Parts: sequence; structure tokens; C-alpha cells
Amino acid sequence: MRRQITGFSNPTVKHLRSLREKKHRKAAGQFMAEGLRLLTDALACGHVPQVLVMGEQRDPHPLLAKLEAAVERTGGEVIETSEEILSKITGKDNPQGVAGVFAEFDTSLAGIDRSAANIWLVAQALRDPGNLGTMLRTGDAVGAGGLILIDDCADPFSVEAVRASMGAVFTQKVAQASWGEFLPWLRSGAGQLVAASLRDAVPYRGAPYAAPCFVLVGNESRGLPEDYEAACDLRVTMPMKGRADSLNAAVAAAVLAYEVLDKVDS
Amino acid sequence: MRRQITGFSNPTVKHLRSLREKKHRKAAGQFMAEGLRLLTDALACGHVPQVLVMGEQRDPHPLLAKLEAAVERTGGEVIETSEEILSKITGKDNPQGVAGVFAEFDTSLAGIDRSAANIWLVAQALRDPGNLGTMLRTGDAVGAGGLILIDDCADPFSVEAVRASMGAVFTQKVAQASWGEFLPWLRSGAGQLVAASLRDAVPYRGAPYAAPCFVLVGNESRGLPEDYEAACDLRVTMPMKGRADSLNAAVAAAVLAYEVLDKVDS
Repeated sequence: MRRQITGFSNPTVKHLRSLREKKHRKAAGQFMAEGLRLLTDALACGHVPQVLVMGEQRDPHPLLAKLEAAVERTGGEVIETSEEILSKITGKDNPQGVAGVFAEFDTSLAGIDRSAANIWLVAQALRDPGNLGTMLRTGDAVGAGGLILIDDCADPFSVEAVRASMGAVFTQKVAQASWGEFLPWLRSGAGQLVAASLRDAVPYRGAPYAAPCFVLVGNESRGLPEDYEAACDLRVTMPMKGRADSLNAAVAAAVLAYEVLDKVDS
Repeated sequence: MRRQITGFSNPTVKHLRSLREKKHRKAAGQFMAEGLRLLTDALACGHVPQVLVMGEQRDPHPLLAKLEAAVERTGGEVIETSEEILSKITGKDNPQGVAGVFAEFDTSLAGIDRSAANIWLVAQALRDPGNLGTMLRTGDAVGAGGLILIDDCADPFSVEAVRASMGAVFTQKVAQASWGEFLPWLRSGAGQLVAASLRDAVPYRGAPYAAPCFVLVGNESRGLPEDYEAACDLRVTMPMKGRADSLNAAVAAAVLAYEVLDKVDS
């Protein structure tokens, strides 16, 4: 049954709005995703929102009806509210008409089955949530298993990361670990660790990639620490024809991941 | 000679701050770039700031001294101010210690010499300034000549685009044109127009790219209009292994541009 909310000061509105901040997301163990397409992708991957918030003015849509039914079947809450309040909740001037609140996923390394995919993306100290979301999206495109976040990365459940992932936050596994946790985990099984690097590197094109291949990119400003690079099985470099000596982190990951895909996808 | 500014309400502070808004940039014909590295790259490409703003607390640096000398030699203004005011001007909590105001460049198609490079990036209705700046950065990396912005794109001189370009706004040519202007210009000389597309496309890997190759990507949400795609010489598609049917626009441009580079860079 739909619940109508008309007041800006409603406690539910306040709670939903608070999920834009990391500390409130962690406290609630929840995050928010917007848009019918994204929520439909989530549902297809088995993620049903705990709370579904819909604008009153939205057009009826069979996918929305399906979503609503799923939420009610699983004991979730369906809320109908004004576009103004939806805008306040999502922090967007033009809200997408529907938003869902999900339980945050388990992001432990233990949840990663490396044999499930030939490619895994790994980011170290990635600070920009847009880059993080873009890496998830790229991971989905190249058929990666997921994204492993090393050290102090942006929150994969932030509104910006979820938005930039275009739904891939639901299709890709996400893990968070320190380098000290990640490296022993990696070495406990099969896996080639490949870094985009300028040091002691071979051309990225046609390099001897092997599955499962873990594609590692570093922080936006500082790149990878030298000892992290040294621990990699393979260091590769992309041509840099201009003044710059690096690419945007999400771009580097994508160019490299597509090159790996050409090798390991057969 | 350095001019000290201590007051937030100083008219110069107000003017510099106003450059964060497009209408003020267009009215003044100026834009702002931050950071010693970026300003040094600009200088190396022959772009001297009209105004150089430095924080009082910054450490002395030979590159900064060189920059200051260049500004004074060309009759520009050097301003020294507090970190708080610098922060207000650049809109960043941790300003980079130095910012420069530049005259906006000519962005007419007439300024593009297509024979100057084997690759040109082209974006249609690209709305995100971060994507735009990232495309400039990628263009620099692949040795592209520049970025041609078709229809209603984000402003290449916005703070976000300049930041994301990591200095490439100074190394890459930028042109702005409508599709109706661009297509006749393209057809008036040599040039292969290539689109990342899902329609009637060949695999992007090993496609018959030819220089000068114009790599075209479309709007973040809608992609390219069908008739724009139809006007291309080559439509190529990247593998999409997951649920998504598209990549981030800047990522698609980069994966494609690196593939083109492998073919035309010889």
C-alpha cells in the first residue's frame, strides 16, 4: 500500500535525505539509487529496494508497477510524494520520478569469487566518486566480475558513484580492503595483477595478460605507490603523445581493461 | 609588481570570482585555471595569464618565479592575497596556491588545421564539464589535434572542464560549431568521421581507421542522433558484456581513440 508524504519535515523525508551523507549511510546500512532504468536493472539482479519513493506526477509505467509489486511482496515500503520533496530527497533539481533505498551490500574480499570472471578492476585510493562509478560501469561493459577498492577510496554507495555507475553498482561485485589485506588474498589463488605504470613497463598493447586479470589503477593525483607497482606481475604503459604523463584514472582503467578483454575473452 | 589584496569585497576579487559563471566568462572573455603545474604547462604552450593570483603562504618555487616574470613582461597583473580569499576566488576549500586568468581562445572551426594531427576528437551535446575536460586530457595523450564541440556542449572554459583537462585545454585546439556548420567543413577536406555506435557497426578493434580520423561521441544520455550516425564514414562498436549498452562518453572516446592511434600512428 502506498503511503503519501506531503510534508518536508516528515521524519522519513529527513531520513532519506540524510542518506546523501556517508555517515548516515553507514549508520543506516542503506543507500539510494534513482531512476526507473537503474531500479529495474537492480531488480533484475535481485536487489529489491527497502523503500521505493515515487513522484505523484509520474506517468504510469509497467516497469514501475513491477517494481512496486516487488517491494510490497518483500515487505518494503512504497511512498508517494510531490516532485518538490523528491527533489529535496535526491538533491537533484530534476528528480527522475522514482528512487529506491537499498541495504548496503557486503563488501568484504571474502565475497569475491575470482573464478567468476576473467577481469577484475582494482582501484587504489580513488577519491572521485564519479571515477569510481565510471569504473563500475566500465567493469560491467567488459564483463568484469567487480571492483576492488584498496585503501581510502570514495564511497561506492554515494549518490554520485551510484549515478555514474548507471546501475553497474548492482551488477558488479564491490569489495573494500587495505593493501595489506588485498595482496595476501590475491596471492592465495590464481590472479595476475597488472598496473598502468610509467616505471619498468611494457607496452599495454598485446602484453601477456592472463585471466583472472586484476587491472589496478592508482589515486587521481599521486598514482600508485612505488611498492604497490613493484608487487604487480605486469606493468604496462599506454602511449602518451602530448605534454601529459597520465590519463584520467577511469579512462586508464577502461583503455587497459578493453585491451585485456581482447586477450582473455576467448 | 605584486599588488596585495586583503579584502573579500575588493572589486578584483569579485571579478575573479564571477568567472566561475559562464555568463561572466563570456562577458569578460576570460577564464581561470589553477595550479602551478597547469599554469606552467600553459606558459610552455605560449599562454601567459593576464592576471596571476598567488596565496601569501605559498612556498617559493622557480616555476612560480618564471610565471610571475612572464606575466609582468607581458603587462599582466600579479596579485598576492590570503588563502581564504584565494579559496573564495577558486571555489575550492584547498586552493592550489596559485591561479591564472586567461583570455578565452578563438574556438571557430576556421582555427582548426586538420592536417596538424592524425586524430581529432568530436563531441556532440556533451553536457558534463568533467567529461569534456577528460576528453581534452585524453586528446593530449593520444596526440590528437583538438576537440570539436558540436551543438550545445558544456563550456570548455568552465572551472570543472579546465580542471579535468589537467592542462590539456592549453595544448589542444578547441572548436565549437553546430552540426550544420561542422559537416560541410569536414567534407571540404580529407577526414574520416567515426562514431561509436550500436547501429550498423563493425567491431572497433582493427576497423579501417584512416587519418585524419575524427572520433565522434554523443550526448551522455541520448547518444548520437540517428542522422548524425548515418553521416559517419565508419560506425564501430565496442564489446558490451554486461547489462549496460553504453560506456561513459569520455571513456568511449578514449577506448576508441587509443584503438585509432594504434592504426594511424605509424
